[in-house]
Amino acid sequence: MSDPSDPYGAFMPGPRATLAGAPEGPLAGLSFCAKDLFDIAGHVTGYGNPDWARTHPPAVASAPIIADLVAAGASLAGKSKTVELAYGLTGENIWYGTPINPAAPDRFPGGSSCGSAAAVAGGLVDFALGSDTGGSVRIPASYCGIFGIRPSWGAVNLTGACGLGPSFDTAGWFASTAGVLRRVGDVLLPSNGELGLGPLLRVQEAWVNALPQVATALQPGLAAAERVLGPSLALNVAPEGLVAFYDNFRCAQAAEAWTTLGPWVEATGPAFGPGVKERFEAARDLAPALAARGRAFRSLIQARMRALLAGGAVLAYPTSPAPAPRLGADLATQQAVREATMSVTAIAGLAGLCEVTLPVARHDGAPVGLSLVAGPGRDRALLALAVRVAAEAGLPG
Amino acid sequence: MSDPSDPYGAFMPGPRATLAGAPEGPLAGLSFCAKDLFDIAGHVTGYGNPDWARTHPPAVASAPIIADLVAAGASLAGKSKTVELAYGLTGENIWYGTPINPAAPDRFPGGSSCGSAAAVAGGLVDFALGSDTGGSVRIPASYCGIFGIRPSWGAVNLTGACGLGPSFDTAGWFASTAGVLRRVGDVLLPSNGELGLGPLLRVQEAWVNALPQVATALQPGLAAAERVLGPSLALNVAPEGLVAFYDNFRCAQAAEAWTTLGPWVEATGPAFGPGVKERFEAARDLAPALAARGRAFRSLIQARMRALLAGGAVLAYPTSPAPAPRLGADLATQQAVREATMSVTAIAGLAGLCEVTLPVARHDGAPVGLSLVAGPGRDRALLALAVRVAAEAGLPG
Repeated sequence: MSDPSDPYGAFMPGPRATLAGAPEGPLAGLSFCAKDLFDIAGHVTGYGNPDWARTHPPAVASAPIIADLVAAGASLAGKSKTVELAYGLTGENIWYGTPINPAAPDRFPGGSSCGSAAAVAGGLVDFALGSDTGGSVRIPASYCGIFGIRPSWGAVNLTGACGLGPSFDTAGWFASTAGVLRRVGDVLLPSNGELGLGPLLRVQEAWVNALPQVATALQPGLAAAERVLGPSLALNVAPEGLVAFYDNFRCAQAAEAWTTLGPWVEATGPAFGPGVKERFEAARDLAPALAARGRAFRSLIQARMRALLAGGAVLAYPTSPAPAPRLGADLATQQAVREATMSVTAIAGLAGLCEVTLPVARHDGAPVGLSLVAGPGRDRALLALAVRVAAEAGLPG
Repeated sequence: MSDPSDPYGAFMPGPRATLAGAPEGPLAGLSFCAKDLFDIAGHVTGYGNPDWARTHPPAVASAPIIADLVAAGASLAGKSKTVELAYGLTGENIWYGTPINPAAPDRFPGGSSCGSAAAVAGGLVDFALGSDTGGSVRIPASYCGIFGIRPSWGAVNLTGACGLGPSFDTAGWFASTAGVLRRVGDVLLPSNGELGLGPLLRVQEAWVNALPQVATALQPGLAAAERVLGPSLALNVAPEGLVAFYDNFRCAQAAEAWTTLGPWVEATGPAFGPGVKERFEAARDLAPALAARGRAFRSLIQARMRALLAGGAVLAYPTSPAPAPRLGADLATQQAVREATMSVTAIAGLAGLCEVTLPVARHDGAPVGLSLVAGPGRDRALLALAVRVAAEAGLPG
């Protein structure tokens, strides 16, 4: 990279959008960047696509989530790159350059919050905001070897953030330590009183879905979680098959993506990079019956998962079934990875659960994360758990 | 049997304790009997043992549960036999005669609520009261091919009932139809508003613990439950091994049994039949450390199971791992059956859950039941579910 202050190409090119944090507050002294889909007053929100940037005026106000972080003492160091319209999991951006994965430079950083993950993994900021609709925080966190949280749906204010699938969208964040991940949550998350967590449930389908070597590499991380919550229990959650989770998530999300962004796509005729283009075409052409089936399936899975987790149970499984794909993987390979990955990320996505990924392992020279997943509203308890499990696993607190 | 009105020897010998039901009420026209550990005013409560009867005066008042049923219109037809001090699962009573299992006359009826189960299975009454500490309603119901419920611990008033292990004891009941089982619950159980149930969880250890042929025979019943609640999910609940459930239940219960009944046993020196004698000796000699370990284990299992079921999930597994043992089985065989059986009944017993058993199958010429188990307080919803599942399974409503 030509910019020595951004060796991983994590930030949007050009002058940085910055905001000085309040001198005092729980996040005083910490720096962060924000995925370029959160509004920063006076700056155009680019959403990863030049045509989007060209057709949108500068934001009048900053997103409340940004204002809250700045008021808590954190300083904004800039906007970080996103996959175009947040609609992709590899982290590729042909317009602004794909950020380098600092933990595995020959591999994709993961997306769509690619720049945020790369900035944290590269040590450029203390934490970073992203968004997660179908895995866009969890997957880059797993690929880049850092902590990440997808909060419960609805837990964090999304005002001033570009939408992709509003009934799935969440604002999440990344950090290099569980402690910082939690401190950000203390600012952004509602307090829900004392909600206990446990027991720990190993979702069998998700472990089987992972590469065997990844499942093996994650065992010490799982053991660390067991030292906190007691022995894990094996559970099956997908008698329909995990691929049904992917397929129904895909359809329900695509329908929302087209409702949300289709009018702009139709009016603008934007140029899209590979993968994103195909996904918007598929969203446009999606049969209404498939969208309806997806929504019905979501209702079923919501009821199922929320019932299972209502008393505090915590799911545990590999965040991604494999490390990041290598750069240059063809679209067919990418699609296969996408299906296997989203079959698992769809569990929390469909049911609106909160999920934290912990960078507990590596395989084949690249990081893989362990996810801990709890019922809606237990975000703070989950972050507190992540701190304890990270300590047990010998990770930075 | 010499008494044509009691062909199965279900009732206590001698004149019947009877009470006429109120002329109107939700149970008007129904008859029932009550295990001879519930007080009936003016009658000695015999607790299955002649020395107990000899050393106790007639009851001054009837147990409230009896009074409630009579006020609701049900007529008491008599006291039914119990295992001595309710401390046994076969249903044997050497003093008053072991009731005949009407569904499999060459086998034990199950206990300790043996007379109640035999009276219902033989069609002598519409329903029958029993009590369940470690399986004493569920097991005779499974063995005799009828419906039975062990309510959530604390859900039904036990005043005026002899105790065995007060922190485990519950008052339950039997019926030949799910409809009557539910109607009795409508009288005896607190109303907890609308509590939904689902998903259905197959407890893997309990299915593996059952005879393979029993597990197979119960599949149609499980399928009926799935038609109501959706596909079942496989779950492991006992990473410690199911035998630890038995062993810790046994110790915690024995300690309570000795606290509750030991003073009388010491003062009276009663004669006990085989099995009961040995269990009281073991209770007397139990190391305090084992009792403490049992209580600690119970706390762990309570937290685990209540968390898993807090949102409405329903466990499904074979009520008993096998049909009733044949009459004449030696004590070693009985003990082996007891261990395998209580390893499963201890799930609800330790955690204070409610459990309904449905007579959905037979194996080797004898009945076996399918249990549906829900979190504490969901008794009414569980009974409503039993009615639906029974209908799906083609059982009498």
